[in-house]
Amino acid sequence: RPRREVLFFPSQVTCTEALLQQAPRAEPSASTTSSAGCLCSLPHGESALSRLLRALLAARVSLELCLFAFSSPQLGRAVQLLHQRGVRVRVVTDCDYMALNGSQIGLLRKAGIQVRHDQDLGYMHHKFAIVDKKVLITGSLNWTTQAIQNNRENVLIMEDEEYVRLFLEEFERIWEEFNPT
Amino acid sequence: RPRREVLFFPSQVTCTEALLQQAPRAEPSASTTSSAGCLCSLPHGESALSRLLRALLAARVSLELCLFAFSSPQLGRAVQLLHQRGVRVRVVTDCDYMALNGSQIGLLRKAGIQVRHDQDLGYMHHKFAIVDKKVLITGSLNWTTQAIQNNRENVLIMEDEEYVRLFLEEFERIWEEFNPT
Ligand SMILES: [Zn+2]
Ligand SMILES: [Zn+2]
Repeated sequence: RPRREVLFFPSQVTCTEALLQQAPRAEPSASTTSSAGCLCSLPHGESALSRLLRALLAARVSLELCLFAFSSPQLGRAVQLLHQRGVRVRVVTDCDYMALNGSQIGLLRKAGIQVRHDQDLGYMHHKFAIVDKKVLITGSLNWTTQAIQNNRENVLIMEDEEYVRLFLEEFERIWEEFNPT
Repeated sequence: RPRREVLFFPSQVTCTEALLQQAPRAEPSASTTSSAGCLCSLPHGESALSRLLRALLAARVSLELCLFAFSSPQLGRAVQLLHQRGVRVRVVTDCDYMALNGSQIGLLRKAGIQVRHDQDLGYMHHKFAIVDKKVLITGSLNWTTQAIQNNRENVLIMEDEEYVRLFLEEFERIWEEFNPT
């Protein structure tokens, strides 16, 4: 049965170290990563954030990100991990948010990840990700710690060919439009 | 086949008068409402906004709205129309946005529509609607003219029992939590 899930936020604050220190290309599973011997004082169970991280870290080939705001350090580390593992990561973001304090975009660029941003008046307000051209992750959540921990938000995780195709087309339109050359 | 659609914004600016002047409970159809003899200078074809209005105006029994920001006059009129037609409308919104200039929330309240809002620090950042407990409308779009006409946004329209159930549960949780009494 194709995956069809929704995460509601705010997320409980949990330790996500085990997920983010996963050896390259190892398959993360709840049993091996829920505690993994970490001694920090945070809870080590699942949370909305850990589920979102898990959905992203499942990428093996490609990850498209189309994000208004991206400042969550955990999500930033997840994206960098995927890049290090050889996943083709492409990021589209909004220029107004990009310059803000705490944005992950500068770090992603420094790590060699392709990022493009808009120049126009309207916001690039999407908040979606496409994993391996198979799973669409989309909703109201901006990728900021403030939103993850404090806001009422939703994120759909859908293995759905039709929606993936339509959102991938939107991504490619924006990717071309934001081509600086 | 259950409805599964996505609207991408920005929306072309089109005339939506024919849709919004629809006689009570008449079934809107593209053929009767696309021009309907209006002589204004705007285009009278379909647009992302007209499709969103149409999806909302299909409500016959109930409409739940869970919206961070609501200032679009057309969407406000659509919600008032539904209320006049006897549809049970309930609105949850964010208190920080509610006070802003141009918010539709005051008008909806004056019209007798039930509205509840949060009091806490985090944002009520959802942007979803549930039509007749059968169709979920959710995405990145705040219901503002600025977002509709200028931003890159997405709105999913899904006839999906499972998602409707999960979002309705979220709505009821928030509705109870924001109960002022
Ligand atoms: Zn820990
Ligand atoms: Zn007109």
